[in-house]
Amino acid sequence: MTAGSAITLGALAADLGVELRGDGAVAVTRVAVLTQAEPDCLSFLGDRRYRSALERTRAGAVILAPGDAQHCPAPVLVTENPYLVFARAARRLHPYPPVVGGVHPSAVVDDSARIDPGAWIGPLTVVEAEAEVGPGVFVGPGCIVGAGCVIGAESRLVARVTLCEGVQVGRRVLLHPGCVIGREGFGFAKDGERWVRIPQIGRVRLGDDVEIGANTTVDRGAIDDTVIAAGAKIDNLIQIGHNCEIGENTAMAACSGISGSTRIGRNCTIAGAVGMAGHLEIGDGVHFTGMAMVTRSFPEPGVYSSGIPAMPSAEWRRAVARFRQLDELARRLKHVEDELKAK
Amino acid sequence: MTAGSAITLGALAADLGVELRGDGAVAVTRVAVLTQAEPDCLSFLGDRRYRSALERTRAGAVILAPGDAQHCPAPVLVTENPYLVFARAARRLHPYPPVVGGVHPSAVVDDSARIDPGAWIGPLTVVEAEAEVGPGVFVGPGCIVGAGCVIGAESRLVARVTLCEGVQVGRRVLLHPGCVIGREGFGFAKDGERWVRIPQIGRVRLGDDVEIGANTTVDRGAIDDTVIAAGAKIDNLIQIGHNCEIGENTAMAACSGISGSTRIGRNCTIAGAVGMAGHLEIGDGVHFTGMAMVTRSFPEPGVYSSGIPAMPSAEWRRAVARFRQLDELARRLKHVEDELKAK
Amino acid sequence: MTAGSAITLGALAADLGVELRGDGAVAVTRVAVLTQAEPDCLSFLGDRRYRSALERTRAGAVILAPGDAQHCPAPVLVTENPYLVFARAARRLHPYPPVVGGVHPSAVVDDSARIDPGAWIGPLTVVEAEAEVGPGVFVGPGCIVGAGCVIGAESRLVARVTLCEGVQVGRRVLLHPGCVIGREGFGFAKDGERWVRIPQIGRVRLGDDVEIGANTTVDRGAIDDTVIAAGAKIDNLIQIGHNCEIGENTAMAACSGISGSTRIGRNCTIAGAVGMAGHLEIGDGVHFTGMAMVTRSFPEPGVYSSGIPAMPSAEWRRAVARFRQLDELARRLKHVEDELKAK
Repeated sequence: MTAGSAITLGALAADLGVELRGDGAVAVTRVAVLTQAEPDCLSFLGDRRYRSALERTRAGAVILAPGDAQHCPAPVLVTENPYLVFARAARRLHPYPPVVGGVHPSAVVDDSARIDPGAWIGPLTVVEAEAEVGPGVFVGPGCIVGAGCVIGAESRLVARVTLCEGVQVGRRVLLHPGCVIGREGFGFAKDGERWVRIPQIGRVRLGDDVEIGANTTVDRGAIDDTVIAAGAKIDNLIQIGHNCEIGENTAMAACSGISGSTRIGRNCTIAGAVGMAGHLEIGDGVHFTGMAMVTRSFPEPGVYSSGIPAMPSAEWRRAVARFRQLDELARRLKHVEDELKAK
Repeated sequence: MTAGSAITLGALAADLGVELRGDGAVAVTRVAVLTQAEPDCLSFLGDRRYRSALERTRAGAVILAPGDAQHCPAPVLVTENPYLVFARAARRLHPYPPVVGGVHPSAVVDDSARIDPGAWIGPLTVVEAEAEVGPGVFVGPGCIVGAGCVIGAESRLVARVTLCEGVQVGRRVLLHPGCVIGREGFGFAKDGERWVRIPQIGRVRLGDDVEIGANTTVDRGAIDDTVIAAGAKIDNLIQIGHNCEIGENTAMAACSGISGSTRIGRNCTIAGAVGMAGHLEIGDGVHFTGMAMVTRSFPEPGVYSSGIPAMPSAEWRRAVARFRQLDELARRLKHVEDELKAK
Repeated sequence: MTAGSAITLGALAADLGVELRGDGAVAVTRVAVLTQAEPDCLSFLGDRRYRSALERTRAGAVILAPGDAQHCPAPVLVTENPYLVFARAARRLHPYPPVVGGVHPSAVVDDSARIDPGAWIGPLTVVEAEAEVGPGVFVGPGCIVGAGCVIGAESRLVARVTLCEGVQVGRRVLLHPGCVIGREGFGFAKDGERWVRIPQIGRVRLGDDVEIGANTTVDRGAIDDTVIAAGAKIDNLIQIGHNCEIGENTAMAACSGISGSTRIGRNCTIAGAVGMAGHLEIGDGVHFTGMAMVTRSFPEPGVYSSGIPAMPSAEWRRAVARFRQLDELARRLKHVEDELKAK
């Protein structure tokens, strides 16, 4: 995106704490994949299968594992974890622009809001009463920061983020466009056939280093809070119901939905389009594969799955018809077994 | 959220039409769960399993059923439906702030729009030509009210709601941030390999007391209207296709999607992540469980389900492999039965 | 929506290049379905099953296939493809309002942005540095056009569209409210238990005539670009991960999600709520039915399906229990077969 800023390999290796083999005076300005890299590019080899691309790369330098170094025609940065070092190097070359404190004249900021002088409030953004915005915070264009929200230092609201009333945002939190944090959860009592809304007076609390994807929705708690713990990463178009709790460093891929009051532990991975019922307990280190249908608690670590992978439709129609007969088929099998035994 | 306003138990019981047992001069200011309630809190017991929490609560008063009253150390409000009475009491203690009529100076309102003097148009909101906004309506920050929209009395557009052209909104409707009502539906004709858009000239009509969740999308009709009837409650991240009709008091949980021209009856509940094909007829009183795949009409009331609940992945892989062989397994079973019979 | 503009059947037939049978001086002003049409309405018969409605219609004219012409009481426009001709006629009667060049005074446009004098920038829209907006482009209210974006001629950003940095938009592209194009994709490296974000420096490129639905999200590429080719139509609430490629004229229905680096060919149709894993290759002419779970590549054209259609819950519970025993059932069947053979 932004043109990278030039840095010498020597400075980069020192920054990243990795070994440089080759000319430290060579400078790189941006990252690129091996096959498309130019001499001003830094690239990386994360998977040995691409070693032939390595041998022919025009990159100015490559991050790779020790065993691959000899195959590279360019200077190398050697590490046991090339992907992680590449992540850091790429951020070094393509940093977010520095946050310059101030309030755009088109923003509408309530007099009672407390904006740190080192925070930026972008154009056409609304900051409501009693909100607090910490140092180094970037609030992009078109955001809404509701009454009483608190945003911790160095967090980024990229653009068009909606924080409803009272949302508590930690430090270095990254909120993507269109996410809606803290809307009133889906809670109703029945009065005959009619639904009566139950006021939702809890809040949403996001820990440090949390990330929330584009157009994702996180509902506020009914009475207690909805909590997303430090380091959790939530992708796009995800629904998190009221009073859910997501543990530290748990990652959820796009299109998943979690019903109210379900608690997910630490270091879990939830693949795309997973659905979870409410009031479940998911332990630490649980992994659900894509489109899993989670209808009970899974307290133990492990990998869990469900769903039928796609197949040719004609074949699928036959299997589905048999699925509906499964109970009958099982009974018939039992009958056959009994008959055989009797003979 | 907002600090509650104090009210005596005597006044509250009269308001709610329930029996008070205890000191009517005691005042409460907010709601809380039994275990965290302070003496200024109103709490409730909805489920007898929590009776031990009731016995130890510090709440100033508790809403509960007649049979539980003797176990409560505090004054009680007695009712056969504690959850419903709690919903009403909570709204009494935590009301929406009153709507003060006016237009924020940063809003952009077309000269031909008709805004009731008792309606509020919030900051950075756009109201287009010929739109009508009724008395007591709250249009929060960052909304777009398209040309020719009509919004009935006392409706709330919380924030960042988009009403496309011509949307008809009933009274006391609640629209959450990010919802998009009335975009042109997904209708195309084929011209060889190319798709040609079919103009969508119908509207969306939302009945009284409808609620639409955050980032939900409701498409406008192709020629006739898309209709959501009075009292229907639609959660977050739901897609409602063009020309769908949703019956009165039907509730849909998050992440569901309904294809075009499907009609759902009254008093249905659609759990999370349900998918429905188009042109179906779903009767009154139909209930779909989470992630149900609805590919045919269900005219009769009842509970319907589909999907395979998650299980350990190794076990799942074996079952899936067998699923693909189901038709063959059924044929082999039949063969075995025939052989046995022949013996 | 907008009142149509009157046109005579003679002019309409000439415009559309179809045969008129009847009085060419008759004028129509809007489209309607056969059963509700008034004499100023144009209607169409796309499906012969509705022929009885045709015989009783009050429409001023009807578009239909040659074999149906004799059954119509009104003048007819005759074509082999009534639905396609109707699409074009409806656009002729209900055109988008012409785009009048200019910038609304409430918009915030960076000095370095290049706005064609024939483009419209709507109220409360932000256009950031170095963005380019072509002739005839309509940017509706509340949009954000990020730094360095390029928008081709005659594209429409209906309202509240977010283009992140560097998005390349072709000509005649239609972007619906709430879509977020070009957010940083979901890419992380692991540092022990913590996730480290990998900067996403690719872009999103949308070809000519692409359409993106409401609240849909398209992530930008990690290093290379995410690409949606000309004529592709993407519905609401869809997630397209980083580095995906969608082929020409492929259509995707609402609520689907595609994980990163998956490539879909030309002329595919993806029904609603389909989930696709990452790094797959889907060929040209592939069709997935609703809620399909796509976990492997499908290079060959064809129709593919998965999922269990909804059934009464009691029946479903029994079938699911048996599903978990499937591997055991298959082994028992094999055992029975072997025993029989041995007898």
